[in-house]
Parts: sequence; structure tokens; C-alpha cells
Amino acid sequence: MRPSKRAANELRAVTLERSVSKHAEGSCLVKFGDTHVMCTASLEERVPPWLRGQQRGWVTAEYGMLPRATGERMRREASAGKQSGRTQEIQRLIGRSLRAVVDLEALGEVQISVDCDVLQADGGTRTAAITGAWVALRDCIEWMRARDMVTKPVLKDHIAAVSCGIVEGTPVLDLDYAEDSTAETDANFVLTGAGGIVEIQGTAEGVPFSEEEFSQMMALAKSGIAKLVDLQKMSIL
Amino acid sequence: MRPSKRAANELRAVTLERSVSKHAEGSCLVKFGDTHVMCTASLEERVPPWLRGQQRGWVTAEYGMLPRATGERMRREASAGKQSGRTQEIQRLIGRSLRAVVDLEALGEVQISVDCDVLQADGGTRTAAITGAWVALRDCIEWMRARDMVTKPVLKDHIAAVSCGIVEGTPVLDLDYAEDSTAETDANFVLTGAGGIVEIQGTAEGVPFSEEEFSQMMALAKSGIAKLVDLQKMSIL
Amino acid sequence: MRPSKRAANELRAVTLERSVSKHAEGSCLVKFGDTHVMCTASLEERVPPWLRGQQRGWVTAEYGMLPRATGERMRREASAGKQSGRTQEIQRLIGRSLRAVVDLEALGEVQISVDCDVLQADGGTRTAAITGAWVALRDCIEWMRARDMVTKPVLKDHIAAVSCGIVEGTPVLDLDYAEDSTAETDANFVLTGAGGIVEIQGTAEGVPFSEEEFSQMMALAKSGIAKLVDLQKMSIL
Amino acid sequence: MRPSKRAANELRAVTLERSVSKHAEGSCLVKFGDTHVMCTASLEERVPPWLRGQQRGWVTAEYGMLPRATGERMRREASAGKQSGRTQEIQRLIGRSLRAVVDLEALGEVQISVDCDVLQADGGTRTAAITGAWVALRDCIEWMRARDMVTKPVLKDHIAAVSCGIVEGTPVLDLDYAEDSTAETDANFVLTGAGGIVEIQGTAEGVPFSEEEFSQMMALAKSGIAKLVDLQKMSIL
Amino acid sequence: MRPSKRAANELRAVTLERSVSKHAEGSCLVKFGDTHVMCTASLEERVPPWLRGQQRGWVTAEYGMLPRATGERMRREASAGKQSGRTQEIQRLIGRSLRAVVDLEALGEVQISVDCDVLQADGGTRTAAITGAWVALRDCIEWMRARDMVTKPVLKDHIAAVSCGIVEGTPVLDLDYAEDSTAETDANFVLTGAGGIVEIQGTAEGVPFSEEEFSQMMALAKSGIAKLVDLQKMSIL
Amino acid sequence: MRPSKRAANELRAVTLERSVSKHAEGSCLVKFGDTHVMCTASLEERVPPWLRGQQRGWVTAEYGMLPRATGERMRREASAGKQSGRTQEIQRLIGRSLRAVVDLEALGEVQISVDCDVLQADGGTRTAAITGAWVALRDCIEWMRARDMVTKPVLKDHIAAVSCGIVEGTPVLDLDYAEDSTAETDANFVLTGAGGIVEIQGTAEGVPFSEEEFSQMMALAKSGIAKLVDLQKMSIL
Repeated sequence: MRPSKRAANELRAVTLERSVSKHAEGSCLVKFGDTHVMCTASLEERVPPWLRGQQRGWVTAEYGMLPRATGERMRREASAGKQSGRTQEIQRLIGRSLRAVVDLEALGEVQISVDCDVLQADGGTRTAAITGAWVALRDCIEWMRARDMVTKPVLKDHIAAVSCGIVEGTPVLDLDYAEDSTAETDANFVLTGAGGIVEIQGTAEGVPFSEEEFSQMMALAKSGIAKLVDLQKMSIL
Repeated sequence: MRPSKRAANELRAVTLERSVSKHAEGSCLVKFGDTHVMCTASLEERVPPWLRGQQRGWVTAEYGMLPRATGERMRREASAGKQSGRTQEIQRLIGRSLRAVVDLEALGEVQISVDCDVLQADGGTRTAAITGAWVALRDCIEWMRARDMVTKPVLKDHIAAVSCGIVEGTPVLDLDYAEDSTAETDANFVLTGAGGIVEIQGTAEGVPFSEEEFSQMMALAKSGIAKLVDLQKMSIL
Repeated sequence: MRPSKRAANELRAVTLERSVSKHAEGSCLVKFGDTHVMCTASLEERVPPWLRGQQRGWVTAEYGMLPRATGERMRREASAGKQSGRTQEIQRLIGRSLRAVVDLEALGEVQISVDCDVLQADGGTRTAAITGAWVALRDCIEWMRARDMVTKPVLKDHIAAVSCGIVEGTPVLDLDYAEDSTAETDANFVLTGAGGIVEIQGTAEGVPFSEEEFSQMMALAKSGIAKLVDLQKMSIL
Repeated sequence: MRPSKRAANELRAVTLERSVSKHAEGSCLVKFGDTHVMCTASLEERVPPWLRGQQRGWVTAEYGMLPRATGERMRREASAGKQSGRTQEIQRLIGRSLRAVVDLEALGEVQISVDCDVLQADGGTRTAAITGAWVALRDCIEWMRARDMVTKPVLKDHIAAVSCGIVEGTPVLDLDYAEDSTAETDANFVLTGAGGIVEIQGTAEGVPFSEEEFSQMMALAKSGIAKLVDLQKMSIL
Repeated sequence: MRPSKRAANELRAVTLERSVSKHAEGSCLVKFGDTHVMCTASLEERVPPWLRGQQRGWVTAEYGMLPRATGERMRREASAGKQSGRTQEIQRLIGRSLRAVVDLEALGEVQISVDCDVLQADGGTRTAAITGAWVALRDCIEWMRARDMVTKPVLKDHIAAVSCGIVEGTPVLDLDYAEDSTAETDANFVLTGAGGIVEIQGTAEGVPFSEEEFSQMMALAKSGIAKLVDLQKMSIL
Repeated sequence: MRPSKRAANELRAVTLERSVSKHAEGSCLVKFGDTHVMCTASLEERVPPWLRGQQRGWVTAEYGMLPRATGERMRREASAGKQSGRTQEIQRLIGRSLRAVVDLEALGEVQISVDCDVLQADGGTRTAAITGAWVALRDCIEWMRARDMVTKPVLKDHIAAVSCGIVEGTPVLDLDYAEDSTAETDANFVLTGAGGIVEIQGTAEGVPFSEEEFSQMMALAKSGIAKLVDLQKMSIL
């Protein structure tokens, strides 16, 4: 029995609330159970220096956590003077995942910066962030379309993410913190709406895992992400 | 006529929502109109080095803004590698204001860190932060009391803050961003529930102001803060 | 009786020595008793990026303390790798105060950087700095005028500053360190030669203060600043 | 045909040269073709603060590149003042991979720091680093064993890593830079000598990849890592 | 003819003014012509971590320049966030030079930090700093002696420094900025009162110099430093 | 007897291995006994901002040490977030030394960055670095010449460096770590092929040294550098 009493292939309650920011061109407050991430997509005129003059745009992401998003207060990264390795790893993952479904030429020479800030954490913040970031990004692109700033299709597909793990020998979907901290293996999957794989990250925390176990996690992830993509579709109706 | 159609002595709609964090010992989401600040109070066992062994506690505050809390996305301070002068000025003000109503000896040798993170900004973030931080701090102390970690009274009074300004020659209460950016003078007042003054900061943005104008702002602030203190009282009933 | 045996409304011995730097376009060594601040005004061709091409200039200030300006040696900020929140707060205040009396359009598209470095501290460094910085700034502008770099009036008025406090229940003017460290309330006032208020900062260190007490400090400040402005006038005869 | 004319399942020429440092307790210069990484394992008496007094040790890794290890000189990270996100991601991966085969209790309360410095890069630096780091770590542990600093078995298994990719539609093993920069998909596999999976990281650079393609890369990786483990065994005979 | 009309072997006007700081245990304002350096010696209870418990003390130095000490305003190092290589090089030199004449065991387990801050620069700041720092250090030790904190002799000798250079083919003593910026060769000498050499640094700015030229500079330095030592002796009478 | 059994005027075994980097335009692995330094010379199109448009080039150097190049592992500077004063001092010395023999106008408006990374340290890393850096720089310039990027002579002479010291009263050449850590005096000499002096740095570690001792070290250095220059000549045959 999982601590949350969920079935092995059951997601937490997921909600995607749009337009939560008065200022951002696109925004989404995503909740995977008690994990809450505020995603805003900001349109910026400038592109990175190495992209200038190439008629292509860029999508980037930044990730942060409020200091008391977690059980113990963490030091504020702005006060520490640098972002941790974990933070940088996560924001690079979010950016790569979003770019996998964006036609950067159709976007034109602008940058969209997606900020994912964890207001409350209970495991799976990076997968929640990717899933919510897609909604914020989509609304930002629609904001541009309404102003004729883009004309061709820019988003090629949905992108969503979920974690899986092996907890007490059983593969389970969408780990919360209680499971995450005891899982033998933890894996994150980022898939498109069409089921294409964009990113896989699997790590054995204790004993190594087998290819068979990995395949079971993959199967759970595919079904979970299909549901997340359905929720994205409903959220933008 | 003010842009928001408010009377000169009228606060924005103010709400104080408690227990918005699963983890923090005390928390409050404060809204002054479209200015939204999440305040969490975290109990920490350690005190600053210079206070060790003195049987006294400490209350400190940190302040931050989500990058897209504002009309234009700002650079994330964690990414810039340091907190701006403005950020440091504000968090020092919040900390001083809270300590003015705390009996640090009654608190015992612990530290309470209050984080004020602006989710959305529309002027007056520091005054909203102080007003909400008091609620989070109060709930943290009550959390301690329920566990017999404090026995004597710790909070000596309420503390709340509001801004005033002179806009087109007229003194007005609780400036929003539209007014703040055009005000000739901007002043922040931090007062206790009993009406004692804890902090006054007044700045002429354009032409200097007179003692008479300052007195008018002070009068507005006193009435505004009295209402904020009433709201704090209702929020903790 | 004050530790320095001064009357409640008595300034410390104040001197303003000009042309103390061989290199700077304007300079002033200001002493408020044992508080000594070296102020230099440097003319720079460049303006901040956000001001370029607007035919307006800028005045900015930086503040520092020699490590042993104080009773205990402090860590050198250049070695610590960052300026403290206090330092940033003070230099922002000096800059704002000076700009309040400068016609930035008449200055033309240049920047004047005023450095205020505390050689020896005995309380009131920021108010001494503002008072001396005005003299350095004035001499820098006259240096420009002698070279036809400015033609219209640039300085609109004098600016000077003084602290007041409530020490053992009595409002007093121009606190030295002995008083500053025991004052219940500490306030800084920045006024123009015409008596207009540019900045007020009042902080209760212990018990909150009343509006009445604040008015008494304001009255002391007005008379003190009038004397400081007279000293500025004599210094530039 | 691969640029290097290798078969799809063919590793580059791999060499593992031990004892390349006069000072380090264990060291290995690993070459995967033109990718050369110097690995040193340093025994340190101290453990991280959060591990003190727990009778357990720690293994950590740091990664760096000489500025001209690559085709274009990169800015030295020590001069830039921080390690890039990529560097941090890689050194966290190396550390996790090594710890997966170390019995930290048998190691005792010491830390082994493994430094992996890329002298010359031609793709696959992180997988070469892990493969060589195991040899350096093993020699460090044997150095301790020769001095009776460890008595029980510390290393539970071999660990080695290799990259795979899909280049022009074909899954291939051990990408060099020419392939890496054109691959549609890039994946890194870290496996134990017994074939257990410790880490999988797969990223679609362009179009998403399928589960079938992923399985093909996994199969290549398993055979490649088996050969790398054989080379490790031969190197320590 | 030298720009300053001095003879080749003539020092600038040198003054050593003691007790220029109200707070420091020892202090000296040293002037070599228009080069003015404020030196303070601060007694600190703590020693560097690597020296703890060894019954020996330490003498260290820090060096800084006010931003407008030079002809063009330089960026404040505290604002830049780090000390330049030049600054670090100079402060390491000052520290080494002072330690060469201190009996660290006789000093006892304390640290003396000597701060050398350049108020105005006209060439030769490091040599002026060393010469003045000796006086500040000496007064700090005498301050300790008056309080029975040291009993044995601590200072073994005088230490003073001067620059030499080859300007338009002629070896000259004590370069000012006008000469320093055109010299073909620039050398700094640090000697004890007894004439022992503690540090030599010679650099060819343009064409290499010969051993003969070096010997001529050495001879100038010896006579110059002998005069500086005499001035130190007179200053402490 | 020296620990290494060398004669007082005997260099360690010195080797200069060229073309050790696949990528760099010039490279040299220099060994002075157990001190091994990898030198790469990288051609870069950009020059420092202050040199732009002047038709002159620049040669600069950076220096680093692998963390376990020394007997005890040192903290990685990239991780510490800054280069130490020692590192900056050394890289400034290498750059100055190389520029002394380069005709910057003949080089044209490009920059050559020479990286000297110590793979293993046993004393004398800076002198080995300078000696090897000349070879890397020379090969970089020849690489340019082969591509008609330079036509006139660029290198004016050889440059090489060696340390000398006084160990137990005896002047000796080319100190290794065992001698360096016990030497009373340590001096570094940088000379051209023609015997001109480019840089002299001598430091008394314990008792001051005499002019006579200095002359003896100078004589040793001249003979040693003559041999190093011969080795450079042989290496580029």
C-alpha cells in the first residue's frame, strides 16, 4: 500500500489553473497533490547573443523554490549568491523539454522565458513544472498570435512529465515526497502528446535496477503522461 | 480622482489568508489589491552567532520577488548572484519592524525567519509584506505555545504598515503602482496596534515636500493602519 | 547631560575642507566631530545604459568605510566580495538626496559619481557624507562651468542632512556614537536650503515613538540643517 | 558509415593508465580515443558536516576541463567565478555512480574525492571519466587496505559508463564529437559489472525517440560496458 | 632632468604622521610627495585557523585604493565584488615584508592586521605603504607593551621600501606617476634597517635590462631606504 | 648535499614535449623533474576592449593547478568561486614575461591566450610554465605564419625562467619542493635568450639576504636559463 493509498498506476490529484498572473503573457499554477508550482511565460524582445540575426527564437526556463517550500527551510539561493547544482540541472531539463516541441523558426526572433517557482514541494517538482510550463508557454504563444506576432503553428505537440520509482520492490507512478525519500530507484520521463520520448533520467538510489524494472516504469510513465496531456487539453478548452 | 477610483483615505481590498503552507509553522498570503505576498514564518533552532548563549531569540526576514511579479520580467536574483540594494533594504525594514513588537527574551534561544515572497506586484509590496508577516509570525509563536516552547507572552502588539503619497498635489493612502510611479512623494509608515511609530520613511521623488504635507500623510497612515490592525485581528479569530 | 556635554540642539564641530584631492573635479573632507568622511566628485563621460541618448545626466553615489574606521576592525567589503545591505542603503540615500537638487537636463549627458569614504566613524556618517558630498558636487559642477561644459544653472539648492534621536527621553541633535548606541529612536533628515524635506527616515530602536516626539526631532533637524547650509555657504565663498 | 569508420557497436580505443600522479592515493589517465581524462582519488580525513559521527564515509567527485581541451578555448571556470550548470551536472553524476558500488560503512569515516579533469575532449568525457574514476577509486581503497585503514570489502562491483546515440537513424555506441554534434538522440548509461543499471540519461536533441530505439541503445550500452569492465579488470591485474 | 626636477638619487618629500586614527592601536598617514596612504594597525584576538594553538602570532596586511585616488576614477572593488590581481599582489607583499621583521613567537597568539588605504596616488603606493605600515605596526606593538600584552622584543628591525626605475636610460630613485608610466624598467626594493634584502621585484616594461643597470638601481635603493629608515626613527622619537 | 643529490648549479631533468593537444594552435608539456605543466596557446580573434582598433595584438596567460597536483588536495578554484592571490600573481607574471619578447604590432589585432595548467607540482611551477609557454606560443605563431596570418617576425627572442634559492646557506639552482619549503631565500629569474633581464623576484623567507648572495643566485640563474634556452632550441628543430 502506498502511503497516499493510491494505486501503483495512479497520479496524484492534478490541477492546472491558468492566468494566475496579472502581468505574464502566459501563466499556470500547477498542482500535483501538495506540490504546487507557479509557471509564468514571459515574452522578451531579446534573444541570446549567439542567436542574434538568425531569424529564430529561443525558449528558456528558470526554476526556483521558495525557502520554506520544503519541510525544513532552505537557504535562499539569492542570498547564498548562487544557484545550486540541483537547481541548474532542473532548469536545464525544463528548457530542453519545452524546446523539443517548439518550432523556433516559427516563433521568430524573440525569447520566451518560463519561470517555474515552487510554492510548496511534496516530491516531483520538476515533472509538475514541465507539465504546467507547457500551459504557460502555450498561452504566451496564443497571446502573441492574437497580436499577429506569430502566424504559423509554433507548438508542435504537448509535452508533459512524470516520475516513477521502485518502492519496496514495486514500480509506482508519480512519487510524492514520502515515497521519493524511500524509493530504491527514481526515474523521470518527459514525453510528447504523441508518445515520443524527449528525456529519460533514471537513477538507482540504492541497489541497481534491471532492464525489466525499467520497462515497467516506462509503461507506467506512458499511461500517466497520457492522462496529463488530457488534463492539459481540458485546461485550454 | 485616483486611477483606482478610491477615495484619498481608502485602502485597497485587503485580505489575509492563513495556513497557506503545508510546511511552515506560520504562514499568510496577504493581498493589498493586486499586490500578493506569500509570508511564511519558519522556526529554526539556531540563532545568529553573536547571540549564542544569551537566552534570547531573534526574528529576521527575507524578501524576494518572483521574476515575473512585475510588468517586465526582472532578472532572478539567485541567477544574478546577489540581492539588489532594494531587496536588502526591504528585508532589513521588515525584520526591524517585526522585532519592534517581539519580546526576544520570552521567545527563548531560537530564531524565526520570516520569508516574504512577492507573487504579484502592484505597488506597496513592503507594506503588504509587513502586514502579512505579522500574521505568519503570530501563528508561528502560537505553534510554539501549543508545544510549550514558549510560555510567557512573546508578541507585545500588532505591527502593520502602509504607504502614503502625494499625487498631483493630493495626499492619498495606499498607493498602487499607477500612483506610485507618478507620486511626487512616497512615504512608508510602520505603526503598532497602539499607534506607536516604529518606522517612517519619506522620500521626495521630485520636488521636496513640506512639514504640512508630511503631517497629512501621517494622519492618513494612522487611520489606514488602524484598519489593517482590525483586519489582522479578524483574521486570527 | 549629553556625553559630549553639548546642548540638546547643538551640532558637533563641523568643518568642510575643499580640494583635498589632487585628481577629483570636486572634493571635500567633511568632519562632524570625530566622524570624518572624504567626498570626491568624479566627472564621467558615460551615463547609465538606461539613460543613453536622452540628453540628461545622472548623479550617483558610493559609500565605503575604511576597515578600521570603527572601534573594532570590520572586514573589508572588497575582500568579503560584496557590499553589505547597510552600505547599499546608505549609498542609495546619498544619491537620491543629491539628485533632489540637481537639474539633470542642465547637467547634460554625463555622470557625476560621488564617493563618500569614511576615514573615521563616530556616528552620523551618512548625514556627514550628504553634507560634504554637496560641496564636492558643487565644485565638480563649477569645474565643468569653468570649461563651458555646463552653461545653465545645474544645482537648484543646497542639500544637507543631520540625525536626531531620543536619548533617555530627550530629543537631541546630531548623535555621536555614544548616543547613537543608546538612543531609543534614531532619525535622519535630509533637507534643502529652502527647508523642503527630501528624505525622512525614523526608526524606533526600542519602544515606539509618538508623533509628538517626531515633531520635536523635526524641529531640531530644521535648525541644525539651517546651520549646516550656512557652513556650506561659507565654505564656498 | 561512422566518421571514425567504426562499426555501430564498436568502442573507440580505450586505455586505462594507472599511477599517473606522484601524489594521489589512486590515479588513472583514461583515454576513449581522443578524449583524455585525468582521474585522481584523494583520501581526506574529513567528511561532509552532515555525515559526522555516523561511522560512514563518503565518495564525491569534481569535474573540470582545461580551457583548451575543446576546439574553441572556453573561459576558465575559476576565472568566471563559478562552475557551469553542465559541470555541476556531470560531477554530481560521477559521484552518484561511484557511490553506487561503494560500501560507505566499510569505508569508515573518511572522504575520497575523485577529481576528473579533461585534458583533451572529443565527446563522451563524462562516460570516460566514470570509467577511469573507478580505477582511481579502486587504487585509493587498495592504498588504504595496504595501511590497514580498511579491512572489509569496500568496493561492491565495477562501474563503467558509455554513451549511445542515434545518428542518421542508426543506433551507435560511444559517440565521438563528430557524431555527438549531429546525433538526433544522445544517451548515457552507467552500469555495474553485474549489469545492473545505476543511471540512464537519454535526451532527444531533435525529434523524440521511440521505446524501440531506446532498447537498441540499451543493448549497445550493455555490450560496450561489458568490454569496459573487462578493460578495468585487465588494468588492475 | 626628471619631471619633478629631483636629482636621480633624491626621494620625494616624505612625511610620516602618527596617531591619525582615533580607534586603531597604531596608525600612520604616510606621504611620498602626492602619494598619500593611511595605514592602521589593528590588534585582533583571533589568529588564522592554521596557526591556532601554536603560541605564535601573525601579521597580515590589506591594501585598497579609494576609487578616485587616481587620475581616472576606478571601479570600487567592493562593488566589483572582488579584489584585483594587483591588489592581492600588493597586500601579500606588504604582509610578507612586515613579517620579515617581526618575532611572531614574541608577539603571542594574536593577529595584527595592517590596512593600507591609498587616499591619493601618484606612483609608488606599495613602497609608501610598507614604509608607513612599519610605523603603524610599531605603535600597535607599543600599545600592547604598555598593557603588558608583550614583554619581549617583537620588532627585530625597521623595514622600508622604495622604487627605482630606468627612465630614458638613467637609473632614478622613487618614481612618481609621471616617471612610472614612461619607465623602461621598474623595480621595488624592501630592505631592513640593517640593510638586509627582504624583497626585490624588478620588471622590464619594454626592453630587458642588464645586470649592471640592476646594480645601479640597487645602490639607489639602499641609499634611499637608509633615509626612509632615518625618517621612521625620527617619527617615533 | 641537495635532497635530489644534484650539484648546486644543476637543473632537474627538463623535457619539452610539443603538440600534446589535438586542438590548440601551439602546445607543450614541460617537465622540470616531477613538476609537469601543460601549456596551450590559443589564437583568439578578439583583443581586450582597451586595445581595439589599434592594429596591435595581445598575449595573455592563465595559470591553474589540478586539485591534486600537490601533496594535499587543494580546493578547486572554480568551486571556490575565485582565483587565489597566488594564482593571479603567477598568471600576471607569465603574461608579462611572454609579452616581453613579442612584437605586438607584428602579431596583428588578435590575442593569444596561453594556458598553463599544472598536472603535477614539485616546486618551480611558475618557472616551468614560462619556459614551456614560450614553446607553445612559438608554435602558435608558426601556425599563423603557415596560414599567412603573420608575415613579419613576431617573436623577438627566447624567454625562459628558473628559480634559485639559498638552502642551508648555499645558493642552489632550480629548487624542488623539498628545497623550496626549507629555503631561507627564494628567487625567480626570467631572462631572454640574449641574457637580458625581464623579471626578478626575490623574497627572504626567513632572514634577509645580502647583495652578495643575490649576485650568486643571479649567476646561477644565468647559466641555468642559458641551458633552458638551448633545450627550447632543440625542441623546435
